[in-house]
Amino acid sequence: MIRVTVFGENHHEKTHKVVSDIYPKGMHTCIADALNTDKEIKATTVTQDQHEHGLTEKKLAETDVLTWWGHAIHDKVENAVVDRVQKRVLEGMGLIVLHSGHHAKIFRRLLGTSCDLNWREAGEKERLWICNPGHPIVQGIDKPYFELQNEEMYGEPFGIPTPDEQIFISWFQGGEVFRSGATWKRGNGKIFYFRPGHETYPTYHDKTVQLVIRNGVKWAKPEGKYPLGCPHVPADKAPEKIVVTGGSVH
Amino acid sequence: MIRVTVFGENHHEKTHKVVSDIYPKGMHTCIADALNTDKEIKATTVTQDQHEHGLTEKKLAETDVLTWWGHAIHDKVENAVVDRVQKRVLEGMGLIVLHSGHHAKIFRRLLGTSCDLNWREAGEKERLWICNPGHPIVQGIDKPYFELQNEEMYGEPFGIPTPDEQIFISWFQGGEVFRSGATWKRGNGKIFYFRPGHETYPTYHDKTVQLVIRNGVKWAKPEGKYPLGCPHVPADKAPEKIVVTGGSVH
Amino acid sequence: MIRVTVFGENHHEKTHKVVSDIYPKGMHTCIADALNTDKEIKATTVTQDQHEHGLTEKKLAETDVLTWWGHAIHDKVENAVVDRVQKRVLEGMGLIVLHSGHHAKIFRRLLGTSCDLNWREAGEKERLWICNPGHPIVQGIDKPYFELQNEEMYGEPFGIPTPDEQIFISWFQGGEVFRSGATWKRGNGKIFYFRPGHETYPTYHDKTVQLVIRNGVKWAKPEGKYPLGCPHVPADKAPEKIVVTGGSVH
Amino acid sequence: MIRVTVFGENHHEKTHKVVSDIYPKGMHTCIADALNTDKEIKATTVTQDQHEHGLTEKKLAETDVLTWWGHAIHDKVENAVVDRVQKRVLEGMGLIVLHSGHHAKIFRRLLGTSCDLNWREAGEKERLWICNPGHPIVQGIDKPYFELQNEEMYGEPFGIPTPDEQIFISWFQGGEVFRSGATWKRGNGKIFYFRPGHETYPTYHDKTVQLVIRNGVKWAKPEGKYPLGCPHVPADKAPEKIVVTGGSVH
Repeated sequence: MIRVTVFGENHHEKTHKVVSDIYPKGMHTCIADALNTDKEIKATTVTQDQHEHGLTEKKLAETDVLTWWGHAIHDKVENAVVDRVQKRVLEGMGLIVLHSGHHAKIFRRLLGTSCDLNWREAGEKERLWICNPGHPIVQGIDKPYFELQNEEMYGEPFGIPTPDEQIFISWFQGGEVFRSGATWKRGNGKIFYFRPGHETYPTYHDKTVQLVIRNGVKWAKPEGKYPLGCPHVPADKAPEKIVVTGGSVH
Repeated sequence: MIRVTVFGENHHEKTHKVVSDIYPKGMHTCIADALNTDKEIKATTVTQDQHEHGLTEKKLAETDVLTWWGHAIHDKVENAVVDRVQKRVLEGMGLIVLHSGHHAKIFRRLLGTSCDLNWREAGEKERLWICNPGHPIVQGIDKPYFELQNEEMYGEPFGIPTPDEQIFISWFQGGEVFRSGATWKRGNGKIFYFRPGHETYPTYHDKTVQLVIRNGVKWAKPEGKYPLGCPHVPADKAPEKIVVTGGSVH
Repeated sequence: MIRVTVFGENHHEKTHKVVSDIYPKGMHTCIADALNTDKEIKATTVTQDQHEHGLTEKKLAETDVLTWWGHAIHDKVENAVVDRVQKRVLEGMGLIVLHSGHHAKIFRRLLGTSCDLNWREAGEKERLWICNPGHPIVQGIDKPYFELQNEEMYGEPFGIPTPDEQIFISWFQGGEVFRSGATWKRGNGKIFYFRPGHETYPTYHDKTVQLVIRNGVKWAKPEGKYPLGCPHVPADKAPEKIVVTGGSVH
Repeated sequence: MIRVTVFGENHHEKTHKVVSDIYPKGMHTCIADALNTDKEIKATTVTQDQHEHGLTEKKLAETDVLTWWGHAIHDKVENAVVDRVQKRVLEGMGLIVLHSGHHAKIFRRLLGTSCDLNWREAGEKERLWICNPGHPIVQGIDKPYFELQNEEMYGEPFGIPTPDEQIFISWFQGGEVFRSGATWKRGNGKIFYFRPGHETYPTYHDKTVQLVIRNGVKWAKPEGKYPLGCPHVPADKAPEKIVVTGGSVH
């Protein structure tokens, strides 16, 4: 059983009727429901308005994969919680960053770059092409691409380090392209960025989008633990016998 | 002319006689002097005890490559200065991180990982093997390796993302190994981590170490600028004609 | 059940008594036996002296992961078989390349580089350090390193493209270092190079070496299929409506 | 002065009037002329119909960067010449692979993958987006993209290993996307793949295409030499004193 925590900003759902009409129980609930259709996954939700954003030490210790959606109030996420999530990713927890999560503190923290991009909210068509048809994240998609009839445009340049693997590249009706699915590893944590999911369109109700997130969760699950810290190895514990020489500042 | 700013923590030089005996004018001055033996380089120094650590907007705007040595008081580096340096690296400024700079805020910020390692201060022998004899950073070293008779040991695991290129790997007398020279790119900035340089040994007086840092500076110099920001592309400025549909949160 | 085919050159076992004394049934049998202690794995062997080296279309179609050990007669491996194995790796079959397989045609074919290295056969001590303690390939090793008392030395520079992940780095008694465990992906196939295994020492009887190969097999198993070929997309099948213009050479 | 050798297949120029009308002196001459407008570059041409395809040991020894265009008769390129070019790239010679060179023996040899893609020859519009505006290869392009009004379509999936850096991604009028500019390093040689250049359109007369190839040449020029070979290090030449033990096959 893969324990997934779905983080939702849960802001636009409360402030924009167009969003609450599409996601009456919140985007996070829609995503968690889609994950829970899979018997290998047990997804629960937390939201930014909860104490510690719901991401307590205990909750994170019981999380195998965290999904993250935020947009309007990234800067309100507490740095102490970002530290905590980063630590867990480095140890091995998987992280799926969705759509406008490209500017989430945790994503920028782990990648080290601006994660900037160009954008346009025009409800245009997006076509996501698969770059490796054999990758576990795209299994079950029976075409070389899938389409969303209405999406926000994100365009290159996308301010990211070179991905370990390119999973999707998007074609937009308005003429742009974007690296819409990409993976990285940081410490022992697997990270998957997946572009679609603007809140004014019903993207998380789309069956292929749901499939990709489920696949992503399975791909990102932990496979071992990387302990943090800088152990001192005293001279008398060195694998080979040595004699200490020179000065010391320790 | 490559304009280099040499950042020095300048702490142990004032608090430990063993260090000030080896570097009476500070490690930063020793490094800058070594760089200035090259006619293509103009190196100046800043120290952590200066206002804004000497790294003002103006100074950074006039810096092509920044070298960074710190150890004991990383946590005293102001976050606003780290933000500023990160921005310049993403735009294209080169960064050479030296020795205990592995735990500098700016290095961890750009790599996104713990940068943890194992260590021992025993003055043992370090032998640095070259992994790509054709790389610009190792030109002029006429052997497959070079040695330092007394160095601190840093051992694997080194908590870094996979480097773009592995330049050196160290063999330590006490039995450990370490990825002692490695490069990454973040935004348009080139980053080179170079391990040697413990303050209680005369490492920065070593001719090969000086050569490597000079080579590193030339390798890391800017070759173009990556502007930051997330431009909005209005629908009527899209490369292809589109009609706006759907709701908006903007 | 993971179907593993263990390829053995089976040459030194027949020509050198020191080798046949250590591996009376051949190195390939020793490796296969070690794999078959795991209930998730079903390993069989093929040898270079068989017709098509045992690697028929049928055999490869039924292989999830191929392990490869060769040394003295790499050049005798038929190019048609190398083509066939490459195709299967690109589709998704895993490949574990062992020791002197660094110069196997299939390894050089997939990596594109010389795979050259320095070497010495002196039965010296090798200590393999783990670079990511959380990686699935090193699970079950309860120390930061493991040792082999007698091994051939392989030293840097190792003529490989930058690995996707560094798993082990070796320290040798004689003073060298080597990237002893490394992974790459080609097409959808996962590749793991694992250095130890000189034929004059009992390396494949070592419990930790056996564990690493078993872990490697599980890590490398296929997770999807990447079909090869260059499909033509006729203009009237383009996702967007277009009108053909300009000349043609087809 | 950068010495560039422009390799041209020179086949369609002789067999298709539409091609010879656009490139009366051959595509290779058009490319070489565009390179020679830069005072830092000295470009000469060779063609596949020459003895050893013009790529003799002597010619390659005097080549800093090789550009490669081929399409119809890749399989007629002699393997001995491919070996020779590969060796020079691994040593440090730059390589620019153009358009249908994606299936050239040398490109597949260096990357190890199929280099397959989807395609359509319909003279449609291609828009190449810049992924890193600071990269030396795109300097001088004053917009976030450039366009070619008539080009062949190449679509994802593109069967390549993950590039070291993504330079361009193309948007096609017919609905596809493609990783149109990408870099890799093999040995010490820098490789740049640049997609545009179908022979039935005047692509190599385009000023931006010419600029990109010139920039690519400057980016790919050698910066050091990686010598090939597997040196034996006798036990008495080991950096550390060792005593030989165990059997030998050498």
